[in-house]
Amino acid sequence: MSKRDEPLTMPLVGPAKVSGAPVDPRAADEPARASAWLIRLEAGAPERTVRSLVERLRGQGLEAACHDIGGGLVAVGRAEREQLRQGLEATALAGRLIAVETPYRLVRRDAAPEGSIVRIGARAFGRGFSLIGGPCAVESRLQIQAAARAAAGAGIHVLRGGAFKPRTSPYAFQGLGLRGLELLAEAGRASGLPVVSEILDPGHLERMYPLVDAFQVGARNMQNFELLKALGDVDRPVVLKRGPSATLEEWLLAAEYLLAGGNGQVLLCERGIRSFNTNTRYTLDLATAVQAKALTHLPVIVDPSHATGLPELVPPLAAAALAAGLDGVMFEFHPQPEAALSDGPQALRVEALDAMVERLRRVEAALAEAGLREAGLPDTPR
Amino acid sequence: MSKRDEPLTMPLVGPAKVSGAPVDPRAADEPARASAWLIRLEAGAPERTVRSLVERLRGQGLEAACHDIGGGLVAVGRAEREQLRQGLEATALAGRLIAVETPYRLVRRDAAPEGSIVRIGARAFGRGFSLIGGPCAVESRLQIQAAARAAAGAGIHVLRGGAFKPRTSPYAFQGLGLRGLELLAEAGRASGLPVVSEILDPGHLERMYPLVDAFQVGARNMQNFELLKALGDVDRPVVLKRGPSATLEEWLLAAEYLLAGGNGQVLLCERGIRSFNTNTRYTLDLATAVQAKALTHLPVIVDPSHATGLPELVPPLAAAALAAGLDGVMFEFHPQPEAALSDGPQALRVEALDAMVERLRRVEAALAEAGLREAGLPDTPR
Amino acid sequence: MSKRDEPLTMPLVGPAKVSGAPVDPRAADEPARASAWLIRLEAGAPERTVRSLVERLRGQGLEAACHDIGGGLVAVGRAEREQLRQGLEATALAGRLIAVETPYRLVRRDAAPEGSIVRIGARAFGRGFSLIGGPCAVESRLQIQAAARAAAGAGIHVLRGGAFKPRTSPYAFQGLGLRGLELLAEAGRASGLPVVSEILDPGHLERMYPLVDAFQVGARNMQNFELLKALGDVDRPVVLKRGPSATLEEWLLAAEYLLAGGNGQVLLCERGIRSFNTNTRYTLDLATAVQAKALTHLPVIVDPSHATGLPELVPPLAAAALAAGLDGVMFEFHPQPEAALSDGPQALRVEALDAMVERLRRVEAALAEAGLREAGLPDTPR
Amino acid sequence: MSKRDEPLTMPLVGPAKVSGAPVDPRAADEPARASAWLIRLEAGAPERTVRSLVERLRGQGLEAACHDIGGGLVAVGRAEREQLRQGLEATALAGRLIAVETPYRLVRRDAAPEGSIVRIGARAFGRGFSLIGGPCAVESRLQIQAAARAAAGAGIHVLRGGAFKPRTSPYAFQGLGLRGLELLAEAGRASGLPVVSEILDPGHLERMYPLVDAFQVGARNMQNFELLKALGDVDRPVVLKRGPSATLEEWLLAAEYLLAGGNGQVLLCERGIRSFNTNTRYTLDLATAVQAKALTHLPVIVDPSHATGLPELVPPLAAAALAAGLDGVMFEFHPQPEAALSDGPQALRVEALDAMVERLRRVEAALAEAGLREAGLPDTPR
Repeated sequence: MSKRDEPLTMPLVGPAKVSGAPVDPRAADEPARASAWLIRLEAGAPERTVRSLVERLRGQGLEAACHDIGGGLVAVGRAEREQLRQGLEATALAGRLIAVETPYRLVRRDAAPEGSIVRIGARAFGRGFSLIGGPCAVESRLQIQAAARAAAGAGIHVLRGGAFKPRTSPYAFQGLGLRGLELLAEAGRASGLPVVSEILDPGHLERMYPLVDAFQVGARNMQNFELLKALGDVDRPVVLKRGPSATLEEWLLAAEYLLAGGNGQVLLCERGIRSFNTNTRYTLDLATAVQAKALTHLPVIVDPSHATGLPELVPPLAAAALAAGLDGVMFEFHPQPEAALSDGPQALRVEALDAMVERLRRVEAALAEAGLREAGLPDTPR
Repeated sequence: MSKRDEPLTMPLVGPAKVSGAPVDPRAADEPARASAWLIRLEAGAPERTVRSLVERLRGQGLEAACHDIGGGLVAVGRAEREQLRQGLEATALAGRLIAVETPYRLVRRDAAPEGSIVRIGARAFGRGFSLIGGPCAVESRLQIQAAARAAAGAGIHVLRGGAFKPRTSPYAFQGLGLRGLELLAEAGRASGLPVVSEILDPGHLERMYPLVDAFQVGARNMQNFELLKALGDVDRPVVLKRGPSATLEEWLLAAEYLLAGGNGQVLLCERGIRSFNTNTRYTLDLATAVQAKALTHLPVIVDPSHATGLPELVPPLAAAALAAGLDGVMFEFHPQPEAALSDGPQALRVEALDAMVERLRRVEAALAEAGLREAGLPDTPR
Repeated sequence: MSKRDEPLTMPLVGPAKVSGAPVDPRAADEPARASAWLIRLEAGAPERTVRSLVERLRGQGLEAACHDIGGGLVAVGRAEREQLRQGLEATALAGRLIAVETPYRLVRRDAAPEGSIVRIGARAFGRGFSLIGGPCAVESRLQIQAAARAAAGAGIHVLRGGAFKPRTSPYAFQGLGLRGLELLAEAGRASGLPVVSEILDPGHLERMYPLVDAFQVGARNMQNFELLKALGDVDRPVVLKRGPSATLEEWLLAAEYLLAGGNGQVLLCERGIRSFNTNTRYTLDLATAVQAKALTHLPVIVDPSHATGLPELVPPLAAAALAAGLDGVMFEFHPQPEAALSDGPQALRVEALDAMVERLRRVEAALAEAGLREAGLPDTPR
Repeated sequence: MSKRDEPLTMPLVGPAKVSGAPVDPRAADEPARASAWLIRLEAGAPERTVRSLVERLRGQGLEAACHDIGGGLVAVGRAEREQLRQGLEATALAGRLIAVETPYRLVRRDAAPEGSIVRIGARAFGRGFSLIGGPCAVESRLQIQAAARAAAGAGIHVLRGGAFKPRTSPYAFQGLGLRGLELLAEAGRASGLPVVSEILDPGHLERMYPLVDAFQVGARNMQNFELLKALGDVDRPVVLKRGPSATLEEWLLAAEYLLAGGNGQVLLCERGIRSFNTNTRYTLDLATAVQAKALTHLPVIVDPSHATGLPELVPPLAAAALAAGLDGVMFEFHPQPEAALSDGPQALRVEALDAMVERLRRVEAALAEAGLREAGLPDTPR
């Protein structure tokens, strides 16, 4: 049904060679040994047999684990090709060997060439162009309810709202904490939208879990490895923002922490890097987002609100992300920007929100009609 | 005829407030005095009367000059509103006073709110989405003829090709110089395409003038002010690339040198800034290109070839520029990338070129059909 | 005894105006109201009376707290000058009012104009030029014992060694954890050196506390605000590294979290920012370290090992920091760099270490003899 | 007499391996072929014989030229070792073969391991710590005469002053041009100081030549290759500023243009790079200056005035450059900063100037006494 890799993505973005890193295994000869390997098993491999393969490899002193990203996948550390071939033969499993010399392994596109689907509530990220929006911070029941209604009305797919706010100054509004999350969850339920909120500390995980549909790891925490380890062990999707001074490789390795920990539901979000250019708050690095999409199987979105700090730049940059083949956009809007407790000036007004979503829909439809972009999956019933 | 400011540009980009700089004069009260002023005269002001206004103002010790950007425009330095009002009254001219507190003046959008048209050969930049393409350097008659044929075949509007090459190393291929320009001009004529080439030094101006349809000022020369002064005095369009570490304001002021010198035919080109991120050669700063479009009346294009150094990123970033409301794209292709004398690896192959142009056309048509982007002007007969 | 502000610091660095921010309150007129205030009480104010002042102010609805940085200090939020004057009068306390319009408050130099002393073990940072050195990671008892002996032999003041390592890749050596800290503490005791190690997570605080003389907050965690809040509540010094993309203000506000939480024992450490320049790993921003010293009362050191990744640059940059009036240097050395499990290539060898320390001592002595730098305080007996 | 490479430079900076580039040829085995070669002839090789060697090599189709940097030096393009050995044998010349795989060749330290001396007037840069100072721009006879007297009084070695000013805005003061140079030359003569001024365009060369003792290539022109080519052909020293976004390699290749053109009198000047950090105007990259010193034989100075824009940071950063083993400092001072026509706020006052120079002298003397830095050469009689 999906024809993702043909019309738009293939030629415009494509799982093509980027930066000299071959990601299409069909092009590469299988070397005799490699720093790491992925074994992509053919569909239908019985779980028990896969486990016995893993155990056999471990018995030979290899580091091996199975993952279900994109079907049966066995990730192996440094090994010889022959060891793996013999293992497959012994367990009568069929699969493709992928030699891995990049520092990241499980996020590589060849681990799931057709691209992963990440579900937040009913919404499938990775097909179609998805929208996450909401206020910077949950401020009151009234405010978040109004925002949720506006979001649902405009056709946004996921409601965002900060409760534990990472604030540069200790004297700034720090968010409503757990109470804010409860208000967010309540507003989400009322409007039928799934919700995402930022987690700052592994110690908050347990209390946040029942209240959010997805966890956000903020830019400042992209390399908070204890937090990543904790979230690797959770069955909830994670929106992983790129740090403002993170290289592409560092970003992908942060995602690798999550996948290596067992959580394959990861959504990458580029939100601007720090450059000398200060006429926008950060510099939206669209090219790297496109590279991330080509090099990994993860859905990739951008956040032009934080990247620029200027609401009038959100619509054109959202349209740019759509045309470049990315999977969605995250942005801030506020029922009353001038009354916001944090980041008010960067929030879109509700009227501008409606206009933008309407326009993005028409652009997406026009592209789909011209065969340049596939439509999204139907939302799953909730 | 043009409905530029309504469908796509207005809501997505718009001559709206960006970075706190009000560019819509209707919103601003006229102050009693300002660091500089623009007087936008109503259409049809007789040239002689305009001159007498300018002389009158100068007689009062003011710095004043007339320009024809977007119709009759008188630019005045520090002055009191009353002086200008009296001058208009005395000469019976009608016009709008625009107080200017930005360091740049003539490039401001309010000097020509509907946006300037810059013509390179028959092509009108500033309406529709325009394409400038060609090899990094002219290498031989054979090569540039092949490139010109491919460009014309694909539907590119302007042929680029370097003859005087600014090379980082004194030991690298420095271009064919004047001979290269002759070959470029010849290939342009043969294929019916106008040509653009980079100028490195005011001393080359006279010899280049008969051979090119537009001059390019390269990123490394954006602040070569002697060169800008020389080009301000020429009746040929200038493609002004943004320096890799130039702020938006520095870029606009470099353009201001050209306009203040009398040359209003300026095309801004964002080609990547230097950031910590080195997985692409530079970082394409699309947000600043969009801001430049909103803040000035000049057409704005991007160059994803130099920005990224990766040919596979050119098509998605070109599509992004199109959707963001920009005016075109400049890129490198080569009939035989592997045989190129400079920057071969960043050049598109001809097949990829055809596919990209075809796709951009379909995107543009789809947007136009959906009312989201106006079509270009018809090319002027040559 | 200390003449810090005269010989070197005053003329070379000085608590002078930097970046337009007046830090010398004597120059500023007291405004009628301010966003925040510091009241620097005269020496000898009885604690009970100070508390009653604080309570009085709170009774008026003001945000107020007392701190002992640089003697009695009362920090107050937004208030009118008259309220404070009346409070002082009513409690018969004498003090200077400092109006604060910078986002940071307690770290400002005028809160403790003579500069804070931060003690790690017996060593007083903030007088003399101090040295923190050791391996990147604790790898084994043998290795850390050898390093500790070399450190003590060379005359280093504090031994560093990572136990919980923040590693970019989940597949890299993650440190020995608690066991590593025990080995570090043991080696410190054996060699008579205090030890510092990085803390990654508030959840580790309790177990680390008995084992380290100071906590290090790594560059990636500079804005891990939950960690900063936890460390604000601890009676141990904190070495706060600047994040690779943190502005001066963000860095000082991170320190402000610690002081606002009650921990005034903070040592600032500049360790390189991310710039386009990749011939060194990061770019040592010495100018900002000098500004931090001028704007705050906290000791400031630099880490040229992480800033450059090149051991041969450590000695000249350490000498530069010394001559620029900073308080010390942190660097990596390893008994056997080629056998190191992490960051080996950036570690100094022991011979180079001895040579560097010897040389820095002679430079410091030469400067002190010429009256250009005061000597350090004698170490306190342990 | 000079013991440059022992006391300070060797251990702190040293012509050591930096960034993996071996610069000490003694360590490297001579390969059978290389991309380029340097032949360092033994002292006393007769010029005629050297020429015959060059001709012999050219006769074999090699690219070869002789230079007198650091004594007789023959630079050869891609060649086999045997060809060079035979050439030396045939001409009975003795010399060391240096295989060159860096993109830059003639600037490499192994071309002149003891370091080049660059003379501006009587002052020998490359031994001792040299000072270039003066106002940003020549504004009037009175102003530049006052500045020259202050410079001479303080013990500055070279007077700087801009006449052709590269200004970001076309509306800013553009300098006095040729008249300014005449005033500068006159003031230099009156005070006994050599003068340096910036050249913007090859077309100005002839008129500037009689008026300046050294040409400055400004940061914005570092890659104005036509200008570099013109200056390569001149027998006057060139102060080559690093561009604000230039990598180390780009900077060294800009210098290579000058040396390849025949001008070996090049002084490198680091003046700050553009980074995200805007609390100083640019970011002084001291580490790269130290690397430039280690990798090349050229003297290296820093310009903390332009790097920071803050006069109070000039003295500590000048002291840092001195302690790090660099060759000098360039800075701006103004007899009346508040009346300056350009960059006034970044200029030191005369009193601060005297204090700084006095202090730097004492630091230098203290280091020399401690055997950590050799004294400068005596000035040559003029």
